[in-house]
Amino acid sequence: MPSRSVALALALATLAPLAAARPSAASYAERVQEKTLPNGLRVLVLEDHKAPVAVMQVWYRVGARNERPGYTGLSHLLEHLMFKGTDKVGPEEYSRTVQKNGGNDNAFTSQDMTVYFASIASDRLPVVIDLEADRMQNLRLTPELVEPERAVVAEERRLRTEDNPTSALFEAVSAAAYTAHPYGWPVIGWMSDIQNATADDALAYYRQHYRPDNAFVVVAGDVDAAEVFARVEQTFGAIPRPEAPPPLPMRSVEPPQRGERRVTVRKEAELPVVALAYHVPNASHPDSAALEVLAGVLSDGQSSRLYRDLVYKKQIARSVAASYDRESRDPGLFVVYGQPLPGRKIGELESALLAQLEALQKKPVEARELEKIKNSVEAAFVFAQDSLFYQAMLLGQSEIQGDWKKVDEVVPAIRAVTADDVQRVARTYLTADNRTVGILEPLPSTGKAPRPMPPAPPAGGAID
Amino acid sequence: MPSRSVALALALATLAPLAAARPSAASYAERVQEKTLPNGLRVLVLEDHKAPVAVMQVWYRVGARNERPGYTGLSHLLEHLMFKGTDKVGPEEYSRTVQKNGGNDNAFTSQDMTVYFASIASDRLPVVIDLEADRMQNLRLTPELVEPERAVVAEERRLRTEDNPTSALFEAVSAAAYTAHPYGWPVIGWMSDIQNATADDALAYYRQHYRPDNAFVVVAGDVDAAEVFARVEQTFGAIPRPEAPPPLPMRSVEPPQRGERRVTVRKEAELPVVALAYHVPNASHPDSAALEVLAGVLSDGQSSRLYRDLVYKKQIARSVAASYDRESRDPGLFVVYGQPLPGRKIGELESALLAQLEALQKKPVEARELEKIKNSVEAAFVFAQDSLFYQAMLLGQSEIQGDWKKVDEVVPAIRAVTADDVQRVARTYLTADNRTVGILEPLPSTGKAPRPMPPAPPAGGAID
Repeated sequence: MPSRSVALALALATLAPLAAARPSAASYAERVQEKTLPNGLRVLVLEDHKAPVAVMQVWYRVGARNERPGYTGLSHLLEHLMFKGTDKVGPEEYSRTVQKNGGNDNAFTSQDMTVYFASIASDRLPVVIDLEADRMQNLRLTPELVEPERAVVAEERRLRTEDNPTSALFEAVSAAAYTAHPYGWPVIGWMSDIQNATADDALAYYRQHYRPDNAFVVVAGDVDAAEVFARVEQTFGAIPRPEAPPPLPMRSVEPPQRGERRVTVRKEAELPVVALAYHVPNASHPDSAALEVLAGVLSDGQSSRLYRDLVYKKQIARSVAASYDRESRDPGLFVVYGQPLPGRKIGELESALLAQLEALQKKPVEARELEKIKNSVEAAFVFAQDSLFYQAMLLGQSEIQGDWKKVDEVVPAIRAVTADDVQRVARTYLTADNRTVGILEPLPSTGKAPRPMPPAPPAGGAID
Repeated sequence: MPSRSVALALALATLAPLAAARPSAASYAERVQEKTLPNGLRVLVLEDHKAPVAVMQVWYRVGARNERPGYTGLSHLLEHLMFKGTDKVGPEEYSRTVQKNGGNDNAFTSQDMTVYFASIASDRLPVVIDLEADRMQNLRLTPELVEPERAVVAEERRLRTEDNPTSALFEAVSAAAYTAHPYGWPVIGWMSDIQNATADDALAYYRQHYRPDNAFVVVAGDVDAAEVFARVEQTFGAIPRPEAPPPLPMRSVEPPQRGERRVTVRKEAELPVVALAYHVPNASHPDSAALEVLAGVLSDGQSSRLYRDLVYKKQIARSVAASYDRESRDPGLFVVYGQPLPGRKIGELESALLAQLEALQKKPVEARELEKIKNSVEAAFVFAQDSLFYQAMLLGQSEIQGDWKKVDEVVPAIRAVTADDVQRVARTYLTADNRTVGILEPLPSTGKAPRPMPPAPPAGGAID
């Protein structure tokens, strides 16, 4: 989950009692209908009739984690290229068609997956289904289409990473924290790899990964499941399962870290940033719920510990946050980071952040604080489900991790977290030997316009 | 070049004047005969009739740099499996046959290549040619053969890396120094990747990389080039060039480092170790000869600066060395490392090493010192050519880098190095922003037998 915004946290605080009083809502297992086509494509349909709208998402089980050295960024480049047209559909016509039908569409790529999505009036859903089925197999990938898009992506990287010191720091922290596992690479890819990508590379990658047995479809909204299955079978069902074997499983396991790592990034910037990253398990591990609560204790809202102590009371930090993405397919990082107020030393902020982590290791959180955070985490989860898009996202993330039905375990797991659990995971994972420290050390401006930037989420997050 | 041993350095010091007086030796370009077969296999033959012996080396252009996450170590595993037999040759029969004919054989894998070699009486050379041609295409790779060998390799990794704290440190330093480029991975592979490797993986890797257009043969010794070409054409020449395209080029470029990185490895050990690693160019760059001389100034023999100052004079270090491998295919690392004497602090040794590097940046080396080192480097190069094996190695390394004929440029380039060059490359590359510091922090023994270890060469070196 990305860092929580203050506004959202406040909104959720109000909602919490309501959410807690909603135990009888039907589970996803009861509400979702599922089918797997003979070509391997899995289809999940969630009927939700509160408005005449539908969301369609096509999830490909391919992201930066499936890439190889020298060819990073291909997943993300392909996401761009999926809008460049097929034999039937011209460049950018996909989005124009969706928009002409009153819908909107986009896509994103993460370490684990590439997702294409559209929201549209539910009676127009077949338009999206047809377009998505078409571009699963008929994409045009000529040098004339690929080369300009490669330049677009290189520019995107320049803006988002090279010219954004906080992003550059998070990229360096991930690279240092991972040694064996590709989560150490940026989703957008290394610059030289982007610049070297060819139409042949994109085509080979497309053929390897864009196939019905390496994807699934999620439809949520005011639809009839039987009708959706029928249309998907007609369209996607006609795509043959390729004879070539499916892509190699990505089975890398990051070895345990045996000592602290520190990376300094010296770059033009206004203020320094410090980030502390710890290897932690993902949602498939029982400690995950307690880690989620721990992140909340540290940085969920203005009454959370980091904000209260470092921003408000001691006035060391301009901003602070803790970030933990339990939905990653392989174990990820728990990151605590902050930017000092002008005039305060970065080392002082680092020590203050570490002191907050030590406090959690030494003394269990109090019952009231724990309850507040658990309510807030649960409320955020429940509240977000007001959105069709987010419901489909939840199902998809859980399916990427292995089984969409696990979505139903999130709230009970959060509810079961005890103060002892929070202390135990703080002691287990937030250790010096398991830590990578990143320091952004500002260099004086060389004359370009200053770009004051709020702290970015840690590298590894999704990009569109 | 690996760290120079004291004995070798002394031997070379004696030889230096002799070597310097050998300018009229014929160049490799004059002595080597070369042919490329229609299937893409290149063959280099160096006739050298001083003894009735021949060396044969088969070089495959595949090593750890060609691997992908989750599948590291496959190059090295395949090197082991190449001795497990073909349809015609039983397991281990390759080596037995060579030995029965009075020869000996072995192989090694590095980041850049996998090399199989045998030395044998020159009239028995056809035996080796036939065996090598056979295993280029007919290797048997069944689960019964692969699985036990995978366990052998896992044990090799346990001994060489997991239980060897200095190797573990160098592995961690490489992993931190490289972010995009696969030189950050160990040649032997990550443990979980070794344990997960299957016969199918090995077979796919073999088919992809073991092909005549991805290999070359070097033969040196008391042979007739025409006869060698004829035999190689008869045997290797019968292997068809596969229809599948050759392996993807590995084109990753490590981005410039923008700040110091530090890694601590805490492991059972007797004494700490500190390593300072800097990104530097390889032999394809004009600075490479000066870097080679710089490494010599620091640690070539007991009169070199690191030894004289830190071991002999200040008695801070038990051992010290500088290591630079200019023969790597992509840019590598310049590594300075040492182990403190018991009772001396690791930070003190780090500072002393840094002071030595600063001294080289501040003041040019004196003419006498420069001359001595240049003679020694040149002598080492010339002296080693007494060995047929090493001559073939030189040709192969140079061919892997792009062109075997460049071997002839080594000595002139070393001779041309000036004191200014040495100072300039010290200033250019040995900077804080370009540095990765590794510290081995000993943990008390948990009761296993102590394993006192001399400093190992940095990770990335070849293993057999």
